[in-house]
Amino acid sequence: MAHKIPTRIYLSEEEMPKYWYNLRAVMKDKPDPILHPGTLKPVTAADMEPVFCKEAVRQELDDTTKLVPIPDGIQDFYRAYRPSALIRAYYLEKDLGTPAEIYYKFEGTNTSGSHKLNSAGPQAYYAKEEGLEYLTTETGAGQWGTAMAMACAFYGLDLTVYMVKVSSQQKPYRKAVMETYGAKVIPSPSDTTDAGRKILEGDPDTSGSLGCAISEAVETAVKTDKCRYVLGSVLNHVLLHQSVIGLEAKAALDKYGISPDIIIGCAGGGSNLGGLIAPFMGDKIAGASKTRFIAVEPASCPSFTRGRYAYDFGDTGKMTPLVRMQTLGNGFIPSANHAGGLRYHGMNSVLSKLYRDGLLEARAEIQTEVFDAAVKFMKVEGILPAPESSHAIKVAIDEALECKKTGEKKVILFGLTGTGYFDLSAYMSYNEKTLTDKVPTDEDLEKGFASIPDIPQNR
Amino acid sequence: MAHKIPTRIYLSEEEMPKYWYNLRAVMKDKPDPILHPGTLKPVTAADMEPVFCKEAVRQELDDTTKLVPIPDGIQDFYRAYRPSALIRAYYLEKDLGTPAEIYYKFEGTNTSGSHKLNSAGPQAYYAKEEGLEYLTTETGAGQWGTAMAMACAFYGLDLTVYMVKVSSQQKPYRKAVMETYGAKVIPSPSDTTDAGRKILEGDPDTSGSLGCAISEAVETAVKTDKCRYVLGSVLNHVLLHQSVIGLEAKAALDKYGISPDIIIGCAGGGSNLGGLIAPFMGDKIAGASKTRFIAVEPASCPSFTRGRYAYDFGDTGKMTPLVRMQTLGNGFIPSANHAGGLRYHGMNSVLSKLYRDGLLEARAEIQTEVFDAAVKFMKVEGILPAPESSHAIKVAIDEALECKKTGEKKVILFGLTGTGYFDLSAYMSYNEKTLTDKVPTDEDLEKGFASIPDIPQNR
Repeated sequence: MAHKIPTRIYLSEEEMPKYWYNLRAVMKDKPDPILHPGTLKPVTAADMEPVFCKEAVRQELDDTTKLVPIPDGIQDFYRAYRPSALIRAYYLEKDLGTPAEIYYKFEGTNTSGSHKLNSAGPQAYYAKEEGLEYLTTETGAGQWGTAMAMACAFYGLDLTVYMVKVSSQQKPYRKAVMETYGAKVIPSPSDTTDAGRKILEGDPDTSGSLGCAISEAVETAVKTDKCRYVLGSVLNHVLLHQSVIGLEAKAALDKYGISPDIIIGCAGGGSNLGGLIAPFMGDKIAGASKTRFIAVEPASCPSFTRGRYAYDFGDTGKMTPLVRMQTLGNGFIPSANHAGGLRYHGMNSVLSKLYRDGLLEARAEIQTEVFDAAVKFMKVEGILPAPESSHAIKVAIDEALECKKTGEKKVILFGLTGTGYFDLSAYMSYNEKTLTDKVPTDEDLEKGFASIPDIPQNR
Repeated sequence: MAHKIPTRIYLSEEEMPKYWYNLRAVMKDKPDPILHPGTLKPVTAADMEPVFCKEAVRQELDDTTKLVPIPDGIQDFYRAYRPSALIRAYYLEKDLGTPAEIYYKFEGTNTSGSHKLNSAGPQAYYAKEEGLEYLTTETGAGQWGTAMAMACAFYGLDLTVYMVKVSSQQKPYRKAVMETYGAKVIPSPSDTTDAGRKILEGDPDTSGSLGCAISEAVETAVKTDKCRYVLGSVLNHVLLHQSVIGLEAKAALDKYGISPDIIIGCAGGGSNLGGLIAPFMGDKIAGASKTRFIAVEPASCPSFTRGRYAYDFGDTGKMTPLVRMQTLGNGFIPSANHAGGLRYHGMNSVLSKLYRDGLLEARAEIQTEVFDAAVKFMKVEGILPAPESSHAIKVAIDEALECKKTGEKKVILFGLTGTGYFDLSAYMSYNEKTLTDKVPTDEDLEKGFASIPDIPQNR
């Protein structure tokens, strides 16, 4: 028999969002300004425009416009793979025997396999509109690089992806997808940039790092006026684009008069979480709801739960502006045991501020327990989740089991950001019981904190 | 601006099919009966029940019930991943500059990555209902094995998958997905069966074959009364389950008053094509439409376009009943150059009969041109297609370009059966321009035809 609330709630094209939601505009206490690392004064658009597209910079610095119109050319892109389904987890609820209602917003059915495409499209669109001919970026696990390759194929732009060398070796199929979309994929470090050559001179056999790949991508981008650099998380304009997730989820729930009690998202740089919660958090700030918000991070990279709130560089190379955020220090590197993404040392500044202000909770989860939750979920709900997304599944299950104890019929919403097709080596380790986790010691953390710059604002 | 006909048409749960469509029931000339290979008389349910579930056998032999109710327990399974989207290919139409309207029914968003799940669910459901405890099957490329692993996890059955050895070595991640779902995956040939041991004795280093994997799976299934064997294509009950594709597609088109002029599907054993066309072909047989139907097969395995219509064994081991079908001969083996599935020597008997009667057209396509079409499609529509599905894309594009020449505004519908996440080595070969195709010579075909049994019905 058909359910009263369907298993999948889809919006019609007319119901799809026409505006992004800029959460900063409704915050009573806004995040501190981004600082120029030389002058320690707030950065200006002029500081950032040599690196990023003009419109991305404008959005990055705009903390007053609540609703930002989505251009027709981007709505057209979104219609190629959106709306994503809001799924009622009937099978998981039954399996857990919980009175809670569980919903998840599933962003994994597009070919890039994750929510990253929601910002890749807009960034490629603006580049095209501004007359650029090519873009550069970096990728680690490969989701962002794939999303950018798809977006650049769609809008007709060239793309160079600096892919962390070890990742390009371990994930040849990720590389193949990007290349099939027409992107040029260069294992990093490479001899195509000063940054790459310098690192190779010091260590010819290095397996590369995201920090180095960023440096190579930026160096290549600023060489010509026809090129800019794009980034897939952490930054405010990326969160703005990702608000399409939360807006769609809210519109779908509103159709059935459902208001979530708890919203859960995994958090690495914070883009999916920030996008998912945006309109709901707006309601909470306005006093219109009592929703609880929970960020879930890996215990191996706990920037919320064990990090410091300080001005720090966005990259390990200390090239970026300074952002006040929850950070483990730009020198912190999570254990190699950790599978998938969510390895970033810092956290988006909006989310960091919400956490400091008590509007956002956070939990750190152990990798093996995250995979337990992932496998339970995939057996009943039929979807192979990405390791990143599975952090949210873990906490959603915990909260649903808490409801089972108390008998409360709470409404739980979580973000299922992507699929795990390219993470099967981690699942194999899990099946073979060789998957482990390494939680940093206090000493490990102190080493990371030592890399946070010693500037007056941090004293 | 939102489209008048949306990019994606979804059915509500209330609109989802409650019945499967048994195309044989409306055929004026029905396929010839399946014969017992010993007696050459029509097989009975009693002949087949030691191997297959009772209900599967009943459906296999039923050529009179037009609408077969889908049990609630299977509708529940379908709701876990259906309805699938019917997508209007606006981006492809624009790219081609065609006046044609192109639609595709996309079956690839579930974790098994293909339409195979539509029959895996019902077959597992019936096994559970009939009190069985486990199932066996074989898998080559891995889509069917993955689908069965998902279905068995859902219904709580044990599953043993005999996976062609070379495939289990080349696709460790396919194996990992099945194992994560709890299936036991045994590379075939193995020492767990007489059939496997016999082959290993003769050739210890053999890379295995689908024929051998089938033999091992059947041998294991018939050892106990708690186990049966399941098959993912070719058979009539599989086509029946797959009619959910065509029924959903028709319901979605009917909502907008759209009637397809041409329906295109790829064909290996024929299950997706048979399912897609079922209700539309019913209309044509009833004189209610003039829709054209096109089966697309690889030029390397051309059972429609260059095969014979004869009684043949379903397997290379000559163990199965005899089916009158389009066949290249059970001894025919397509070139190893061929990527993906669609490697079966025969064709479902219903589709074979429709082809003989002029109701179904067929085309054979060259692999490299199929990949050209796949890459064009993925760049504009954003979906990485399976090599199998790309055969249908190729002909859909050809037909749309024909409309461009003639100015006709035809409505084209094709089946996009699955995604290519596990076929990226073929895409890598394509990118490197090392992908080739090997079309069988007339001499190759004669060798295959020699394996067709010399029985009175074939003379």
